[in-house]
Amino acid sequence: MDEQQRARRPGGRGARVGAAVHQAVTDLISERGYGKFSVGEVAARAGVADSSIYRRWGSLETLLTDVALTRLNARSPMPDTGSLAGDLRAYAANVAREITGPDGLALLRLSVALSSNGQQGLQARDDLLAERTRQLQSMLDRARDRGEHAPDAFGVLDHVLAPMYIRVLLGMGPLTPDYVDGLVDRLL
Amino acid sequence: MDEQQRARRPGGRGARVGAAVHQAVTDLISERGYGKFSVGEVAARAGVADSSIYRRWGSLETLLTDVALTRLNARSPMPDTGSLAGDLRAYAANVAREITGPDGLALLRLSVALSSNGQQGLQARDDLLAERTRQLQSMLDRARDRGEHAPDAFGVLDHVLAPMYIRVLLGMGPLTPDYVDGLVDRLL
Repeated sequence: MDEQQRARRPGGRGARVGAAVHQAVTDLISERGYGKFSVGEVAARAGVADSSIYRRWGSLETLLTDVALTRLNARSPMPDTGSLAGDLRAYAANVAREITGPDGLALLRLSVALSSNGQQGLQARDDLLAERTRQLQSMLDRARDRGEHAPDAFGVLDHVLAPMYIRVLLGMGPLTPDYVDGLVDRLL
Repeated sequence: MDEQQRARRPGGRGARVGAAVHQAVTDLISERGYGKFSVGEVAARAGVADSSIYRRWGSLETLLTDVALTRLNARSPMPDTGSLAGDLRAYAANVAREITGPDGLALLRLSVALSSNGQQGLQARDDLLAERTRQLQSMLDRARDRGEHAPDAFGVLDHVLAPMYIRVLLGMGPLTPDYVDGLVDRLL
């Protein structure tokens, strides 16, 4: 059994290390913000060796993305309401709630920060985006399977997600339910 | 004559200090990126005392915004083509060119960084946004004066600027002329 398999075995030492490291990252993010700590500080907080983190995640960027994806997926399951309008409204409302929370803004900033962080950062950002795109695509595919007319994932990105992201990134006020529903209705 | 008036007198010592400080900031941004230098480093590079910078700009955030606004306004005069479609297409193309250049990305990142930088950062960001909004509003007002139907400035932000900003911030490929024109046509 190699290190990666050990790391993945539920309940084993790998799982305990994983949980401790994720918790350390979460704590350091809320205390200092994304990008304001090193692998060494995460390791010290989690009570593991730096080398354990490098062996398992390869870099701080990959670790941050793993934490972000884990939290994102745990919190925002994709809705399945039976209609595209219902799905997209529920999805947009979830995203709005998520990115207006303190962790969501950190997640948005992480995506932006990763884009300027060299090749590993780009890979980490691509993983983060690919996961969101995959989730969104399956919602749009379900709608097409039901015979509904559906925009493509880029349409949702450009006209539902981007306006919400930019308003939050620029600190432009709350995302009201009317505003969020309006973005979806306008797209459909 | 108080310090502020002196600082504004064209051709005087204030203008020379202003030009030297702006140049120092521009150089430090291109060497290190936004947010990676202190007032002390700007002062040393410009050959002025720290206190001169604090007296004139109050904070690093205000200075960065002043530099960003000066460069933005020098580069992106608002178009006046005689029709709203023409104006918005030219404006969107200008913004696309600006934010896909290395300084433009830095400017976007600055806006994002300022939003998390306490009260002075928020004021600096508001000044930056207010200036862009004022320019955009005058274009929309001209269209209404000609009897054209015009969206409001938030519509332009949400459906033309935000998609371009997010694609650049997330590093998602080039902004082609077809893509940019499409955003404008869709809004109108």
